[in-house]
Amino acid sequence: MFNHKRIRDYGVRIGRLQTGPRNAITDVEGVTVGHVTLSEESSQTGVTAILPHQDNIFKEKLVASSHVINGFGKTTGTIQMQELGTLETPILLTNTLGVGVAADALFDYMLERNPEIGRTTGTVNPVIGECNDMFLNDIRAKFVKREHIFEALENTSSEFEEGAVGAGTGMLCYSLKGGIGSASRIMELDHGSYTLGVMVLSNFGILSDLLVQGKTVGQELKEALCESYKEEDKGSVMIIVATDLPVSERQLNRILKRAVAGLSRTGSIITNGSGEIVIGFSTATRIPHDKPEKPLALTQIHEEDMDTAFRAIGEATEEAVLNSLVTAEAVKGRDGNERPAFKDLIEKFGVSLKP
Amino acid sequence: MFNHKRIRDYGVRIGRLQTGPRNAITDVEGVTVGHVTLSEESSQTGVTAILPHQDNIFKEKLVASSHVINGFGKTTGTIQMQELGTLETPILLTNTLGVGVAADALFDYMLERNPEIGRTTGTVNPVIGECNDMFLNDIRAKFVKREHIFEALENTSSEFEEGAVGAGTGMLCYSLKGGIGSASRIMELDHGSYTLGVMVLSNFGILSDLLVQGKTVGQELKEALCESYKEEDKGSVMIIVATDLPVSERQLNRILKRAVAGLSRTGSIITNGSGEIVIGFSTATRIPHDKPEKPLALTQIHEEDMDTAFRAIGEATEEAVLNSLVTAEAVKGRDGNERPAFKDLIEKFGVSLKP
Amino acid sequence: MFNHKRIRDYGVRIGRLQTGPRNAITDVEGVTVGHVTLSEESSQTGVTAILPHQDNIFKEKLVASSHVINGFGKTTGTIQMQELGTLETPILLTNTLGVGVAADALFDYMLERNPEIGRTTGTVNPVIGECNDMFLNDIRAKFVKREHIFEALENTSSEFEEGAVGAGTGMLCYSLKGGIGSASRIMELDHGSYTLGVMVLSNFGILSDLLVQGKTVGQELKEALCESYKEEDKGSVMIIVATDLPVSERQLNRILKRAVAGLSRTGSIITNGSGEIVIGFSTATRIPHDKPEKPLALTQIHEEDMDTAFRAIGEATEEAVLNSLVTAEAVKGRDGNERPAFKDLIEKFGVSLKP
Amino acid sequence: MFNHKRIRDYGVRIGRLQTGPRNAITDVEGVTVGHVTLSEESSQTGVTAILPHQDNIFKEKLVASSHVINGFGKTTGTIQMQELGTLETPILLTNTLGVGVAADALFDYMLERNPEIGRTTGTVNPVIGECNDMFLNDIRAKFVKREHIFEALENTSSEFEEGAVGAGTGMLCYSLKGGIGSASRIMELDHGSYTLGVMVLSNFGILSDLLVQGKTVGQELKEALCESYKEEDKGSVMIIVATDLPVSERQLNRILKRAVAGLSRTGSIITNGSGEIVIGFSTATRIPHDKPEKPLALTQIHEEDMDTAFRAIGEATEEAVLNSLVTAEAVKGRDGNERPAFKDLIEKFGVSLKP
Repeated sequence: MFNHKRIRDYGVRIGRLQTGPRNAITDVEGVTVGHVTLSEESSQTGVTAILPHQDNIFKEKLVASSHVINGFGKTTGTIQMQELGTLETPILLTNTLGVGVAADALFDYMLERNPEIGRTTGTVNPVIGECNDMFLNDIRAKFVKREHIFEALENTSSEFEEGAVGAGTGMLCYSLKGGIGSASRIMELDHGSYTLGVMVLSNFGILSDLLVQGKTVGQELKEALCESYKEEDKGSVMIIVATDLPVSERQLNRILKRAVAGLSRTGSIITNGSGEIVIGFSTATRIPHDKPEKPLALTQIHEEDMDTAFRAIGEATEEAVLNSLVTAEAVKGRDGNERPAFKDLIEKFGVSLKP
Repeated sequence: MFNHKRIRDYGVRIGRLQTGPRNAITDVEGVTVGHVTLSEESSQTGVTAILPHQDNIFKEKLVASSHVINGFGKTTGTIQMQELGTLETPILLTNTLGVGVAADALFDYMLERNPEIGRTTGTVNPVIGECNDMFLNDIRAKFVKREHIFEALENTSSEFEEGAVGAGTGMLCYSLKGGIGSASRIMELDHGSYTLGVMVLSNFGILSDLLVQGKTVGQELKEALCESYKEEDKGSVMIIVATDLPVSERQLNRILKRAVAGLSRTGSIITNGSGEIVIGFSTATRIPHDKPEKPLALTQIHEEDMDTAFRAIGEATEEAVLNSLVTAEAVKGRDGNERPAFKDLIEKFGVSLKP
Repeated sequence: MFNHKRIRDYGVRIGRLQTGPRNAITDVEGVTVGHVTLSEESSQTGVTAILPHQDNIFKEKLVASSHVINGFGKTTGTIQMQELGTLETPILLTNTLGVGVAADALFDYMLERNPEIGRTTGTVNPVIGECNDMFLNDIRAKFVKREHIFEALENTSSEFEEGAVGAGTGMLCYSLKGGIGSASRIMELDHGSYTLGVMVLSNFGILSDLLVQGKTVGQELKEALCESYKEEDKGSVMIIVATDLPVSERQLNRILKRAVAGLSRTGSIITNGSGEIVIGFSTATRIPHDKPEKPLALTQIHEEDMDTAFRAIGEATEEAVLNSLVTAEAVKGRDGNERPAFKDLIEKFGVSLKP
Repeated sequence: MFNHKRIRDYGVRIGRLQTGPRNAITDVEGVTVGHVTLSEESSQTGVTAILPHQDNIFKEKLVASSHVINGFGKTTGTIQMQELGTLETPILLTNTLGVGVAADALFDYMLERNPEIGRTTGTVNPVIGECNDMFLNDIRAKFVKREHIFEALENTSSEFEEGAVGAGTGMLCYSLKGGIGSASRIMELDHGSYTLGVMVLSNFGILSDLLVQGKTVGQELKEALCESYKEEDKGSVMIIVATDLPVSERQLNRILKRAVAGLSRTGSIITNGSGEIVIGFSTATRIPHDKPEKPLALTQIHEEDMDTAFRAIGEATEEAVLNSLVTAEAVKGRDGNERPAFKDLIEKFGVSLKP
C-alpha cells in the first residue's frame, strides 16, 4: 500500500518471520488507522486514531493489555484495561498536552454511538497515548481541537501514511525526524496462521545511539553532522500492537513485554524522560458488554506456542521504529527549530544501511 | 471547623488514635481543599480540588504514590506517579465524564504558572480522580466546564465542606446520598508527632452491606425502607491521603494499601463496578524539579515505625467514609431520581449508631 | 465433618451466603488437606499440605494466581504462578525456616511422580507458604524434616482438623492461639451453582484489635487479662483459596484481592511484620502440560458475575480466621511461652460473641 | 584480574562508558563472589555466592530491588525484597532443583551468624536464583548439597572466574556453553564517580539468534555446524547488579528494568521457557536492622542523573553475557550430551567478531 520507500527498500531485512501483505498493523483484519496532520509554521502536531474493529467496540470489547516500559508519560485508560482485560474504545495518539481534549472528545464520540452509557449502563474508558513534540511544535498553544479528534476517528482506513503525519507530525526519533511507523509478522502455528502488527509513534533516542541491524549508523551521522547537534531526549514512544492470535490478557501482556527487545536493537537505552508504553489487543475473541446467559467460551493458545509471538513482536517493533525514521520528511517548526530526515542524511553522507 | 454534625457527634468513635484539630485532611500543614457544587435539577455534580502545598508544586514536587484497590475507573496520572514517585500538580476530583475537561484545564492552570513547561523543560502530569454520579446527575450532559475547574483550584482553603458538595454533589454511598468526607489521625512516634489525613469521595456500596462499627445498620434501614429500594453498585471511591510523615514512595505505597481495611469495616465487598483508587503524598520532603548540584538528602522513618501509620490510615478511611455518609443532605436529581440522607433515615426510623 | 465447636456454634453467622456442606475448603470437589503435627515441648510446629485435585497436577495444571497483601514473607513459587497463570504442585504450608526443606522435599515428590521432569521436559515450580511460629516453637531447631513433608502430602483427606494442628501447631492469632481454619460459600449464578472455599494459616494480629462481627471482643479480653499481656505482632497469615468457578487468572486474581476485606473485619490493621499472602486456584479447567494439537477451549464467567465471588471470599476469609481462633487449644511451648485458647477465655470471662 | 581471554580481547567494545578496573561486579567496593564447581561426568553443576558487603548483612541491610523479565523461574526471596526494599542475606545461584537445599543452608548460615534470629527478632529472607542445567547435568540427581553452599559462601573473593564455573558449570548460552560472565561501568556524574557491576548466570537463547554488536554470528555458526544442531531454549538468565550509586529502591528498580536492553542486543527474544530475573542492590546506604532513635538520613540522586545508570546497565549486561559465552570451555556431561565452546567454534570456523 505504501508508495514511500520503507526500510526494506534500503536492503534492511529485520528478523526471519514473513511480513503480512501490507507489512503494517492493518494486516490484522478489521484494524484501521486515521491521521489528522497539523503542519504549518509553529503548529507541527496532529492526531492518529486506531480502530480495533469496525463494529461497536463498546458493545463488543476486545481482550487487551498494556505494559509500561518507562512510565514518564500521561497515557490514560490503562488502569481499567489491566483490571478488566478489555479495550472498549478506539485508541487515540496525540501530543502530551492534547490528552485532555482527546479524552473529552472520545467520550462524546462514544456517547453518541451508545445512548445507554450513563443511563442504563455505566460509563466508558477512553484510551489515549501521547508523546511530547515540543521541539518542533508550539505545544503550549494546544493546536489539537475536538474536531481534529473526530476527524481522525472518522477517516480511518486499512491504508495509511507513515512518517511525519498524524500524531507523528512533530515527533523526533534518535534526534532526527520521526513519527508513525508500522510493520507486521505472520505467525505460523500448528493450528493455523496468525498475524501480529505493530504501529509506533516514535519520539525517543539520541542520534549517536541509533543502530540499524547493529551498525552504528547514528554515530556515523553524528560525526558527519556538526559537533553541536542537539541530542537531548525528552521523548517517548507509544507502541500499539494488534493480533488475531487467540490469547488471554495474561498471554497478551507477556507478548507486549517483549516489544522492548525490538526497541533495544535500534539502540535505545530507554532514557529517564522517555515515556515508553505498549498497548495491545487481540481481535480473536469479542467480549460482550452485556452479560450473556451462559459463561463465555474462549479460545487460547498453549503457552508453548508463545515463542513465535515473542519473536514476531520484537521483529515488528524494530522494523516499525526504523520505518518511522526512514519515511519521515524533514520538518521545520517552532522558533525555527528543525529536524532533518534520516533518508536525506544517509543519501547526503553516503551512508549504507546494508549489513 | 465543621458546623455540621459528623459521625463522632452521633457517639461513634472509630479506632484508638487521636484525631487532628480539624479531624480532616487539612490537618496536614499546607493542604487545602476547594469545591465547586453544581446542584440544580438534573445537574448534580461538581469539582473538588486538593492543593498539596501552597507553593509551586511543579517546581517543588512531593513524594507520592497510588494504589489501585479495584481498577474499574478512569483516574489519570498514576503511571508517571508510580514511575517517578512524585506529585507535581494539584489533585482534582470530578465525575467520570469530566476527566477530559479537568485534565485539559489543569494543563492550562499549570502552563500559566510555569512558563518554562513545553519550552525549556518537559510537560506536566495532571492527576484526576473520578466517580460516576449518573444516578442523580445527567452525566451525559457534561455540566462540568473549564471554569469550574479553575474556580475549584483557586478557592481552596483549610476549611471545607463535607457531604453533597463539590465532586460529591451527585455521589451515592451504600445506596444513600454520599460524597465528600474526611478524617485525620495523629501518629506519635519516638522522634516526633505526625499527622495523616484522608479525604474520600464516596460513591460505592449497597445499603444492606453498611456497617457502623460492626452494627448492621444498613440491613436495618433496608428493612425499614420499602423492599424495592434500588441497591445496584456502579460506584467507586476515591481516597486521597496526605501526611507529613517522612516516607519513601515505597513506604507511602505500603500505607496506601491499608486504606482498604477502613473501607472493609464499613461493610464494602469491593464490587466489580466500583473503581477504588487511593492517591497519597507526603509533605515531609520536597523534590526539586531542577537538578541540584548535590544528591538529595532525604529523611525516612525506619520500617518498624510503620504500624502507627497503618493503624492511622485504616481508622481515618473508615471515619472519612462515615463522615461522607452522615453529613450528606438528601438530593433529588436526574429524571426524578432521589437519594435520602442517612442522617434523616436514622432519625426517622430511630436507628442508634452507638455500639 | 468437624466434631469440634466452630464459630457458628457460638451463634456467630458471617455474611449472607450459604456455606457448603462441610463449610470448608474441601467443599470444592477434589481438594484434600493433610496435616503433620509436631507438638512436644519446644517443638510446636508442623506441616499442612493441600492437594488441588487428585490426579497428576503437573500434567494437568490448574488456573492459579496469588496476591500479596503484605510481602514481609518467604512464600516461594509465586513468580512463575503469576507469569504462567497455573499451579503445578500441591501447596505446602509450614514454619518460615522450613521453607527450604519443604521445597526440596516437594521437588522429590514431584520428580518421583513425573520421570520426564529434567529429562524430556523442564523442571517444576514448588509452592510453599509459611508463617513464623517462633514464640511457641523453637524455630531455630528446624524440627520439620523431609519425612514430615511426604507424610503430609500422602495423608490428605477431604476431612481435616482445624486449630493448633499441622502448620498451625505453633501459630498465634490476635495474640491468642491460632492456626488452621476454614470456611466455604456457595455462589448461585444464573448458569449454575459454584463453591469457593478458604483455608487460612492464621498467625497475625494483636489481641486488642480483635473484632467478632464488629464487637470489640479483643479489647474486652485484653482488659480481663493482666495489663502486661504480650501483644507484639511478628505474625503472618497464609490464605489458600479454592473454587470451581470458571475464571481466568485475571479474574481469579481479582477475587483473591478481596480476601483482605474479610481479614479487616476481624480487626486486622495488617502490621509491618505480618506477611499476608493469598494463593488461589480454580478447578474448573485443567491446563495440559503437553501442548495439544488445537488451541485450548476455556470457559470463563462474564465480569458482571464477579460480585458473588467477591462477597464469597470476604465472608469465607472472615469465618475461616474466626474458626482458626475458636478451634485452637491452648499451647505451651518454647521456654515456657504459652498462649491461651480463645474458647477457654470467652468461657472463663463470660464473653458473649453474639451480636 | 582475569587471566582468560574476554570479549574485549577479541576486539569487541560494547558501548561508550569506561569499565571499572576489573570490568566485573567486584569493582563495586565490598562485593565478593565465590564458586563451587561440580564437574564430573553427569554432574555438571555448582553454586555461586555473591556477598553484597563484608559486614553482617542481616544487621546492615542494603537497598535492593528485583525485576522479572520473564517469570518462568523459581527464584526465591523477591516478595520481601519488593515489600521492604532491602537485601539481608548473600545471594546464591545454583541449578533449579537446588533451590530448596540452598535456601535451607542459607537459613543455617544466617542463624549461625545471628543468634537473635527466631529469638528476639524475626526470621530472615534468603535470596536464591536459579537456572536449569538439565541438558549437561543430571539435575534429577541433585548433586548440590548443603556443604557446597557453605563452601561457596565462605570462599568468596573480589577475584573470581567466569565461564563454566560455579552455578554456570552446566549452563548453556545461545545453545553453546555458557555460564558466569561479568562486566562493569563507571558512571561520571557532577557530584562524583560511581560504579555499576553486573554478573550474569547465562542459560538462554538459541544459536541462530546470537548477535555480537549486531553481527549475525550465531547464524553463521549455525550454518557452519550441522543442520541438526539442537537449539531448544529451556533456559533462563539470572542478572545480579551491584552499584554504589545512592538510589532509592524505586530508582534502583528503574535501573534493573533496563538490563533487558543489553540482553536484547545479544539477540535474545526472551523465550517462554526462559526465566529471566534481575536482582540488584546499592551499597551506598546501609539500612540498620534495629530501629535507631531518629529517622534515617538517606542520600539519593536526582532523577535527571538516571540516564548514565541506564546506559551503564545495558552496556554491562550485554558485555557480561558475551563474557559468559566467550570464556566458557566445552563441556560433556549427562548421557553424552555436550556443548562446544564459543571460542573454539569461532577459531575453528574463522569467524571474526570485529564489527
